Amino acid sequence: MKNRIFPAVIGLGYVGLPIYLNLQKKINTVGFDIDKEKILNLKKKIDTNNQFKKTDFFQHKISNFSSNYSQLKKCNFFIITVPTPIFKNKKPDLGPLINATKIVGKIIKDEDIVVYESTVYPGVTNSICVPLIEKISKLKNKINFNVVYSPERINPGDRKHSINKITKVIALENSKIKRKVKFVYKHLTSKLFFTNNIEDTETSKVFENIQRDVNISLMNELYIICEKLNLNYENIIKIAKTKWNFLNFNPGLVGGHCLPVDPYYLSYVAKKNKINTKLIIAGRETNDSMKDILYKKITTYLKKNKINYHAKILICGLTYKPEVADLRNSLAYNIFIKIKKKFKYSTGFDPLIHNTQAKKKMILNKINNFKKYKAIIFITKHKILYKIYKKLIINKKNIIINCML
Amino acid sequence: MKNRIFPAVIGLGYVGLPIYLNLQKKINTVGFDIDKEKILNLKKKIDTNNQFKKTDFFQHKISNFSSNYSQLKKCNFFIITVPTPIFKNKKPDLGPLINATKIVGKIIKDEDIVVYESTVYPGVTNSICVPLIEKISKLKNKINFNVVYSPERINPGDRKHSINKITKVIALENSKIKRKVKFVYKHLTSKLFFTNNIEDTETSKVFENIQRDVNISLMNELYIICEKLNLNYENIIKIAKTKWNFLNFNPGLVGGHCLPVDPYYLSYVAKKNKINTKLIIAGRETNDSMKDILYKKITTYLKKNKINYHAKILICGLTYKPEVADLRNSLAYNIFIKIKKKFKYSTGFDPLIHNTQAKKKMILNKINNFKKYKAIIFITKHKILYKIYKKLIINKKNIIINCML
Repeated sequence: MKNRIFPAVIGLGYVGLPIYLNLQKKINTVGFDIDKEKILNLKKKIDTNNQFKKTDFFQHKISNFSSNYSQLKKCNFFIITVPTPIFKNKKPDLGPLINATKIVGKIIKDEDIVVYESTVYPGVTNSICVPLIEKISKLKNKINFNVVYSPERINPGDRKHSINKITKVIALENSKIKRKVKFVYKHLTSKLFFTNNIEDTETSKVFENIQRDVNISLMNELYIICEKLNLNYENIIKIAKTKWNFLNFNPGLVGGHCLPVDPYYLSYVAKKNKINTKLIIAGRETNDSMKDILYKKITTYLKKNKINYHAKILICGLTYKPEVADLRNSLAYNIFIKIKKKFKYSTGFDPLIHNTQAKKKMILNKINNFKKYKAIIFITKHKILYKIYKKLIINKKNIIINCML
Repeated sequence: MKNRIFPAVIGLGYVGLPIYLNLQKKINTVGFDIDKEKILNLKKKIDTNNQFKKTDFFQHKISNFSSNYSQLKKCNFFIITVPTPIFKNKKPDLGPLINATKIVGKIIKDEDIVVYESTVYPGVTNSICVPLIEKISKLKNKINFNVVYSPERINPGDRKHSINKITKVIALENSKIKRKVKFVYKHLTSKLFFTNNIEDTETSKVFENIQRDVNISLMNELYIICEKLNLNYENIIKIAKTKWNFLNFNPGLVGGHCLPVDPYYLSYVAKKNKINTKLIIAGRETNDSMKDILYKKITTYLKKNKINYHAKILICGLTYKPEVADLRNSLAYNIFIKIKKKFKYSTGFDPLIHNTQAKKKMILNKINNFKKYKAIIFITKHKILYKIYKKLIINKKNIIINCML
């Protein structure tokens, strides 16, 4: 069997890249992405998200990166790890998922297996993806080919819960393919949890992220109350934590590709069925409003300190969360752009972002001299930035605004 | 010092009674309640809430229960453990707290200490209670007497987190009285956490309960979605729990004297300061709506099974949560009353409630023959009821509706 299974990972972002890098250590694997620039970088062992170092790019003899889909034709086990974002109107944008499905539909053969890892609302795999493959390929699910759903649980920036250490859920409706799927996925983690219901598994994944989003939103709501009532949020939480079951969540700017998106996926299908997801949406809106609250806090403070629009201002920490190098879907970056519109000589600074990203976005990733900035604002709490903050507040050479929640 | 401190516990409900019973084992204590019937029962070692057995009522030589406030005059350390409910319009009803404060105001002397344990919104102790004591007594806080805030963390029905095992927060603004307060409270638990800010501590307590209320409401919202979309809630949660940080909350009927109330306390003060507690209130409303959702589930099922309004129906489990004997603020009881209006021959049954309560409310607490009931509905999931449920579904003699979440 070992010789017969040839996997392809389709979509090489936060989810696909670690899967590819772990798989290709053990079995020949194709890493596919439609982004040609990304493929060029990966071939040079450069991960612009800074999650992987050059040494992580162990090269198996046949494994390779490609943006040419003819490379996928030799594969028989397709792992789809494309993003599932939302449109501006907050509705699910299944475009990347449908495009990846179409590619697979064109090349799928008898006995092939397709694994979806992307987060979706309940029903997408079986009612959208499967019929699309069947239509394009003229093959039948569960007869000619099989579809599996295995929700990704990648937490960018979290080394403690890397893919090898966590439990991976695998939903397959045809138990005959279990051995094949296990053969591939055991290379990722020894903790495999098999289940036979794809819809339940799709739902479990959105539930997980919604629970986190709602808990953070509660801390944001409580933080806002404390700020307005002049209560000491940090001391209050310190006291509350002495209770045996108080949960450790922090307020903050919720960005990225999961939490700000997944609640809308579930709400979309709920709304279609006339269910009002009042709490879930209230949480999402509270989290999203934090960018405006921090922006207002910053501008109020700048005004109070008579900083005019010609002053040099530095905004530090712009990625969507601490210890990641990604500016996409970042509320911190969003705040920076708004400040820049008001204060002409604002400069963005994030030591974690890659040189190519820094150049493209005209942001600094290195600074020697902080003195020239009248005001320095800290947003995303990278460890390295917190150290800089600690030094600068002692020096008292600049006006420092701490928005690191 | 031991001879000088003579505590009184004012309000002998879920909070006051365990404090009294623990204290009076070690030091002379007065147990005061305005409810004369309750005092008569307690003198006979009867706790109608069924939290304490007769053997728990160890009697110290001078300790005594009383509803006569002249008994408090000899005391110099007042622990106020009265309820803080809400009005029908959801606004805080500080009536019992103010009445208890007035009693203390009349008898307080130089060097006395007043400890508030009741849950309040931030500011109540210092801006309402203290001025009231000062006005009535003509004494000065921090000069003549001192006020302490120590939020209760009693979880009725939970023997694992009884008062002796948990951390007790004590907020005192005058460190000179710490020794006296410690002398009393060390008899309750060895884990005392001292802080000097009463407002922060008041806030921490409402935060704790709101976090729990919101998390349960999320599970309720997810449960409702599953019911309407025909998804298997239990299987979904089983899958989600394989993630390292998925939190173990269950959907359910949130009743009692804390969770359905405390969110409105914080929202009240927030609203007064023009802050919208959108998430907190959404959570509260979702939890409260569960009684209507379960009621509808029951009546739909009865209709489907052609149960007419003359049929004998038994509703089992009526207290506000499993393993407690209290019908007050119970959504299960609320559902029972609604069913009874529609189905004339409905009978309520809860094996945990006390005989006096059963008689008063015309509810059974013992049943020998289940056969005569056409339909049997289970709501509050007491362990003993779950056992009965298991037996009855095997027997198949009745129509069984399981609403035990």
